[in-house]
Amino acid sequence: MFRYDPHLQFTSKPDKPDAVLAMKMQELIGGQFGEMTVMMQYLFQGFNCRMPGKYKDMIMDIGTEEIGHVEMLSTMVARLLEGAPAETTEKAVAANPVLGAIIGGMNPQHAIIGGGGALPFNSQGIPWQAGYIVASGNLLADFRSNVSAEAQSRLQTSRIYGMTDDPGVKAMLQFNLARDTFHQQQWLLGIQNLIDDGLSDSPLEDSRSAEEDKVHDHTFWSFRTEPSRAAEGRWASGPALVGDQQIQYLPEPAALTDDDGLLPPPDPELFATYDGDQGPGAPGTAGGAAATGAKTVAGKIKDALT
Amino acid sequence: MFRYDPHLQFTSKPDKPDAVLAMKMQELIGGQFGEMTVMMQYLFQGFNCRMPGKYKDMIMDIGTEEIGHVEMLSTMVARLLEGAPAETTEKAVAANPVLGAIIGGMNPQHAIIGGGGALPFNSQGIPWQAGYIVASGNLLADFRSNVSAEAQSRLQTSRIYGMTDDPGVKAMLQFNLARDTFHQQQWLLGIQNLIDDGLSDSPLEDSRSAEEDKVHDHTFWSFRTEPSRAAEGRWASGPALVGDQQIQYLPEPAALTDDDGLLPPPDPELFATYDGDQGPGAPGTAGGAAATGAKTVAGKIKDALT
Amino acid sequence: MFRYDPHLQFTSKPDKPDAVLAMKMQELIGGQFGEMTVMMQYLFQGFNCRMPGKYKDMIMDIGTEEIGHVEMLSTMVARLLEGAPAETTEKAVAANPVLGAIIGGMNPQHAIIGGGGALPFNSQGIPWQAGYIVASGNLLADFRSNVSAEAQSRLQTSRIYGMTDDPGVKAMLQFNLARDTFHQQQWLLGIQNLIDDGLSDSPLEDSRSAEEDKVHDHTFWSFRTEPSRAAEGRWASGPALVGDQQIQYLPEPAALTDDDGLLPPPDPELFATYDGDQGPGAPGTAGGAAATGAKTVAGKIKDALT
Amino acid sequence: MFRYDPHLQFTSKPDKPDAVLAMKMQELIGGQFGEMTVMMQYLFQGFNCRMPGKYKDMIMDIGTEEIGHVEMLSTMVARLLEGAPAETTEKAVAANPVLGAIIGGMNPQHAIIGGGGALPFNSQGIPWQAGYIVASGNLLADFRSNVSAEAQSRLQTSRIYGMTDDPGVKAMLQFNLARDTFHQQQWLLGIQNLIDDGLSDSPLEDSRSAEEDKVHDHTFWSFRTEPSRAAEGRWASGPALVGDQQIQYLPEPAALTDDDGLLPPPDPELFATYDGDQGPGAPGTAGGAAATGAKTVAGKIKDALT
Amino acid sequence: MFRYDPHLQFTSKPDKPDAVLAMKMQELIGGQFGEMTVMMQYLFQGFNCRMPGKYKDMIMDIGTEEIGHVEMLSTMVARLLEGAPAETTEKAVAANPVLGAIIGGMNPQHAIIGGGGALPFNSQGIPWQAGYIVASGNLLADFRSNVSAEAQSRLQTSRIYGMTDDPGVKAMLQFNLARDTFHQQQWLLGIQNLIDDGLSDSPLEDSRSAEEDKVHDHTFWSFRTEPSRAAEGRWASGPALVGDQQIQYLPEPAALTDDDGLLPPPDPELFATYDGDQGPGAPGTAGGAAATGAKTVAGKIKDALT
Amino acid sequence: MFRYDPHLQFTSKPDKPDAVLAMKMQELIGGQFGEMTVMMQYLFQGFNCRMPGKYKDMIMDIGTEEIGHVEMLSTMVARLLEGAPAETTEKAVAANPVLGAIIGGMNPQHAIIGGGGALPFNSQGIPWQAGYIVASGNLLADFRSNVSAEAQSRLQTSRIYGMTDDPGVKAMLQFNLARDTFHQQQWLLGIQNLIDDGLSDSPLEDSRSAEEDKVHDHTFWSFRTEPSRAAEGRWASGPALVGDQQIQYLPEPAALTDDDGLLPPPDPELFATYDGDQGPGAPGTAGGAAATGAKTVAGKIKDALT
Repeated sequence: MFRYDPHLQFTSKPDKPDAVLAMKMQELIGGQFGEMTVMMQYLFQGFNCRMPGKYKDMIMDIGTEEIGHVEMLSTMVARLLEGAPAETTEKAVAANPVLGAIIGGMNPQHAIIGGGGALPFNSQGIPWQAGYIVASGNLLADFRSNVSAEAQSRLQTSRIYGMTDDPGVKAMLQFNLARDTFHQQQWLLGIQNLIDDGLSDSPLEDSRSAEEDKVHDHTFWSFRTEPSRAAEGRWASGPALVGDQQIQYLPEPAALTDDDGLLPPPDPELFATYDGDQGPGAPGTAGGAAATGAKTVAGKIKDALT
Repeated sequence: MFRYDPHLQFTSKPDKPDAVLAMKMQELIGGQFGEMTVMMQYLFQGFNCRMPGKYKDMIMDIGTEEIGHVEMLSTMVARLLEGAPAETTEKAVAANPVLGAIIGGMNPQHAIIGGGGALPFNSQGIPWQAGYIVASGNLLADFRSNVSAEAQSRLQTSRIYGMTDDPGVKAMLQFNLARDTFHQQQWLLGIQNLIDDGLSDSPLEDSRSAEEDKVHDHTFWSFRTEPSRAAEGRWASGPALVGDQQIQYLPEPAALTDDDGLLPPPDPELFATYDGDQGPGAPGTAGGAAATGAKTVAGKIKDALT
Repeated sequence: MFRYDPHLQFTSKPDKPDAVLAMKMQELIGGQFGEMTVMMQYLFQGFNCRMPGKYKDMIMDIGTEEIGHVEMLSTMVARLLEGAPAETTEKAVAANPVLGAIIGGMNPQHAIIGGGGALPFNSQGIPWQAGYIVASGNLLADFRSNVSAEAQSRLQTSRIYGMTDDPGVKAMLQFNLARDTFHQQQWLLGIQNLIDDGLSDSPLEDSRSAEEDKVHDHTFWSFRTEPSRAAEGRWASGPALVGDQQIQYLPEPAALTDDDGLLPPPDPELFATYDGDQGPGAPGTAGGAAATGAKTVAGKIKDALT
Repeated sequence: MFRYDPHLQFTSKPDKPDAVLAMKMQELIGGQFGEMTVMMQYLFQGFNCRMPGKYKDMIMDIGTEEIGHVEMLSTMVARLLEGAPAETTEKAVAANPVLGAIIGGMNPQHAIIGGGGALPFNSQGIPWQAGYIVASGNLLADFRSNVSAEAQSRLQTSRIYGMTDDPGVKAMLQFNLARDTFHQQQWLLGIQNLIDDGLSDSPLEDSRSAEEDKVHDHTFWSFRTEPSRAAEGRWASGPALVGDQQIQYLPEPAALTDDDGLLPPPDPELFATYDGDQGPGAPGTAGGAAATGAKTVAGKIKDALT
Repeated sequence: MFRYDPHLQFTSKPDKPDAVLAMKMQELIGGQFGEMTVMMQYLFQGFNCRMPGKYKDMIMDIGTEEIGHVEMLSTMVARLLEGAPAETTEKAVAANPVLGAIIGGMNPQHAIIGGGGALPFNSQGIPWQAGYIVASGNLLADFRSNVSAEAQSRLQTSRIYGMTDDPGVKAMLQFNLARDTFHQQQWLLGIQNLIDDGLSDSPLEDSRSAEEDKVHDHTFWSFRTEPSRAAEGRWASGPALVGDQQIQYLPEPAALTDDDGLLPPPDPELFATYDGDQGPGAPGTAGGAAATGAKTVAGKIKDALT
Repeated sequence: MFRYDPHLQFTSKPDKPDAVLAMKMQELIGGQFGEMTVMMQYLFQGFNCRMPGKYKDMIMDIGTEEIGHVEMLSTMVARLLEGAPAETTEKAVAANPVLGAIIGGMNPQHAIIGGGGALPFNSQGIPWQAGYIVASGNLLADFRSNVSAEAQSRLQTSRIYGMTDDPGVKAMLQFNLARDTFHQQQWLLGIQNLIDDGLSDSPLEDSRSAEEDKVHDHTFWSFRTEPSRAAEGRWASGPALVGDQQIQYLPEPAALTDDDGLLPPPDPELFATYDGDQGPGAPGTAGGAAATGAKTVAGKIKDALT
């Protein structure tokens, strides 16, 4: 359950409005790595966390902070939109020709849809969507995703920082840069803590590691038709990060199989184009292994029930 | 420019078809972290890479490998669909009642749209989309995203591995697990290489670090109304990962501002609800700073042109 | 800024797991009218509200409550997924044939993506997206949307209520039904308050009412080729809700114009198919009114600058 | 079955082209509340209506009218695009520098994709999608959604009305404002009719009202950490709209439960991070209630079949 | 403007309900090639058609027919859903265990969202979206898209036809197959008519054909690392369809350039990773050709205005 | 499996940067008919092709070529973005006022997200999505879709060609026009080959042609309320393309049925609005044919198992 403290976490006041910048800052609200993404990603990771204690509490703490970041950025965008040109375009341009550039650069949806307020969209007006986030229940994998989100988010913040001279905007973005720096660390330290606590064996996602194909987990494959300078990287030689194997570099590797991907004859009821070279296909129920498998199970049902 | 070697990288042959498993394996093709994601993510990172040499070559090598992984998984799905029930449902169930479960669990689009072939969709039939990927031009940030994608992809592979007993499927998934293990390492070693080569100052995205707010880049904020066990984590104390500050834990922190987010009077032409308490709003051109700023620029145009 | 109170608003405990119900309940989290919708809709309406005081506070109060509802429903879904079949399908079906139905009906993404936790998706696995919500700045229009969202949400809750006998689930849904009942009232009373406070002239969105076409704002048009029983409804006769006109019913109405939608000759550079009947089209700059209008403005720029 | 009357419902002729306005008007065609939304929403509500007679006829009448509105607006957009700059940008700007602003503000897809015609997209080029609409079969809930759609649509029309001085465009928008005014009334009167006809007990969606939690259907909860002025609204006191209870205002409410959302041990096959504090988790088939429930059913199958 | 004739074009009555089939038939309503696609595609092509006369009338005629097809299919789906299991799942399965398969296979959104009616979604519950359609203004290109849509739609209809034995459903699908056959012809004949009327020079989209690279418009490139049997096809030899050149087959072709895609030094303000090998990059305004180009234009503005 | 040849297929070098053109060219990368579409469409058609030999090889050859086209266009876009204005907007405009137009017209995501590189998006910043493509297994239907994609793609290329004077860009687009011309032919010749090889009976998709309704497969229906000039087209008279029937033109056709689409009484558990005129509805299990059908099957299970 949540509570609302009616102050912003940090001042979000531009010195003067700038409708073009408002459009750009939408990326930090509703973009792939905007605040809505980290907010929803952390909240769902927290809701789904299996362990009461420091991990769940930490995730919920930062998830709650991020709701407030959406608030800060939305407030900033709404204030940047003050006095944005929403009236008759031609009249406006006549009164002040340079407005043409602003009109070209601003997002008219800020006026049409939002009435001068922030939108849950990115800088191109694309609605935020939950396909951006992940909450897998596996904290190592999710903390990796969280580091990534904070790094990309910080980079975008840094780029937008260079697009304005407004001291009020810059002050808030300096705060955001700082939080993104800390949050990157937080998730990296979280990974370290998972290992220290014995909840992960390595810094890699390595579930079912005993079953993985050990021949192919330490080889770099180069698919280049000419010599590849990829061979010069640390990823192409030296000890692997886990286990005691040496990384191997494979130039122009042959396929590991002569399987050419030939598909079986199609079900004639599906009208896939087929020349009959492999003999006739059979409709679903008659010949397919799904049916075959099912028949086996049917026997087991019979056994179980009779 | 690309070439096609008409063999699969690794054998992709199930021992017998299984339409329900085919549906689940679509997640590994067209899901958020499926092979289409890593393929397109790495190709775009490679196309946009600014440095000829080992980094660009490495990225293109793995991007090219991933096209082949889409091929392997698509082939596997098409083979798993052999004999899948596509004909009259009732007739099928009458002939073999257990088919009902298979029919319930399979994706009918495999028949209706794909004619028994793989689809560029996830396990719920949602088309893959480029909003899943990132290619920012900043290799440190992108390698972080790549580690994340490989970790999540491996985790999903591992989960699906547990959903089948088919030796052919398991053999291919063991190969995929191995490649995901190696690729996680590859990107982590890439980050190390960036630092070693002086292309990044730290393991964190830290552009414009001189301008970030140094007061707030090493504090953990707890927003919990009751004591939070987040204080027990490494992220809440100890040295920061960059710089020489100590991380601080802030329980029940007050807002850093008394800014309550009050917005300015709205443009009356937008019909936002407003009670006039802050005085009348002004239409876009008349009072807004956008116009003000524009006027200044207009003067500069005049100066420049006359 | 927000705070986290580490208790659920209301108990969210099923008596026993039910993976199929978990899938259905996702509609109440990430569907078009799920809790994510009302949460984000109210938060953005609150962030963008122009008036400090009872309206903004009310919107933020309910927005904050709804974050907790996402938490409640996510917890319920995760608990319903306990012991859901995620392992080898065939083995599971052999051990207990009826599991086939459950496997067919559950969403495998709950296992593959969510690791047994809730997802920010609807009941068909479609990610929530911000295109569902609206925050227009006009409280009358937005409160209308809020009533609609609560009514549809309550209806879906009521339908799902009938799909389970689980006392724990039913108890929570009874609470949700109650909140949706209250929230419908809350927004309707909010509309009444807007009128009482003089912030809206009528229960209709009526901005620029003085400029609207008064001939056509009180007529019901029937487009049926046979007599329409729509004439029997209150919407087809009687006094209009605003103003003092009587509603009129127009059967088989003629078009109000002889404009047949004929388009002008196309720009030849765009290769739209055209037979030249209206004379030659002209490329963009040469003849179009955009250029014409622009030329006028260009004159004004010149006037302004010289 | 439908018929086409080859005249527009109302004249859709701008006095002169304006490519920037054309882009903005796309919001009224393919936006969240554009004419495509009301057209498809009403048609599906009509197709799914269970009652022959005035309700179904009314819904189909207005749905049919809205197809014609899509036609009117598309025609207007195509005419506004006449002579829009589609040729070499630099050449155009050299010939008429002010074209730069137009080029910046127009949607190049109008040329590239549409060849100078209207698109089924919103003002940011986002394709219309059916996730915007609802047709629930419950007319009370759907009429609420319809009022909302007409109100938001009218507001957006009104905002765009202020962005042009073109008399032809304004005349058509005045017609549209009028229809949106009438249609708001139509749906509100429809709700009244449902109540008068005994098809709804109250103006609220209240299915299964006997089962809802009566303790929590008349309380306003304030989640603000400081006193909330929401207490001053009509929604916080006075009689409820249905039933005979008084609305109650609850400041700083405690959670209704001590349920802290702790989740059960995870299925080890899913590799959710877990420290074992609640004892070992069990794979899906072994311990989960899904299996338990299924076993019960299995017994019933046996009983039924033997 | 449209009219509604309150009869279906063709009877849409199943002999008995079948909720699983209802789910599959949604593909024919709201899928990529469902009736909503052809309906909206043809209507927008008609609205945007530049020539009054037989082409525009034909397009509008078929667009109007397709609205009625959406109606037919929606009616069929709603009737197929009669008596679909929407109540307590466990109770239902206890009463009739085989219902489990139906429950697994049906779309619960038909109950939860649609109240037993059709949805504007595909067979996986994905909302229809306008990104499926095209209306380019070029009738040759659009008629090609229309043939494609009718062919794919007919194929899907044919596949679903094989999934049912219901005589009522089959009768309607036989009608739909017939219309799709005719409509394929209609668009192919339309292409022929465009050529006969001199509105297109060839059956190919060939705008600006005089400017296209004549060396590369008649060569088949094989990118296979092993000999390709593609050389055996008619597309690899013989006369080209337009012009008088012979098609040439190019095995293992070399790149036409030694351009290796090296990108220029990045703008340092964007923090793209860069080792400085090509010298320092410059911020946007200082060195970029955009600025250079702009400066030139600036001179022209000055010339024009002074 | 794929290989990477580190040269572009054709030179992709603009003479000078142009950020606005870069934005427009994104349509050719990530738009509905961009290179990502043909690349993924052909690869999936190839992966799913049932016949080893010339068809599969041809499809894979062109699919592989298209990956290289994505590379060419991405390289072009990144080079066009050189020196694009990414820094402080106001400062830039002050230094060079005409930059305002460029800033208005460019896509800021090129800087914020892509760091000066190409994006997998269309010209409005909408991510590419797999809902654009089709791979049905039926080569005739798919080749129709491929012709359509090449024709639309060529048309868009041709339109953008007219928007630039840059010789480098034009040279590459001339190459692209040529390839699109050849590829249109390739797919048309492929259709001819399918017929010549006996893999298709006609140029139409005609699966289950024996079962289609022969009365309605050769009639043009006009739904116009006034005489339609559609009667003048070849599609309205003359011999059908298959079979020996003459096409018939039906003006103002009556419905083929008196089925008015009346739906059965709703399941009361779904709360669809209903007046009881058709008698009471029944809950899912009690009366529906789904249950009826299921009971029959249940008997068959019993028969099969006992």
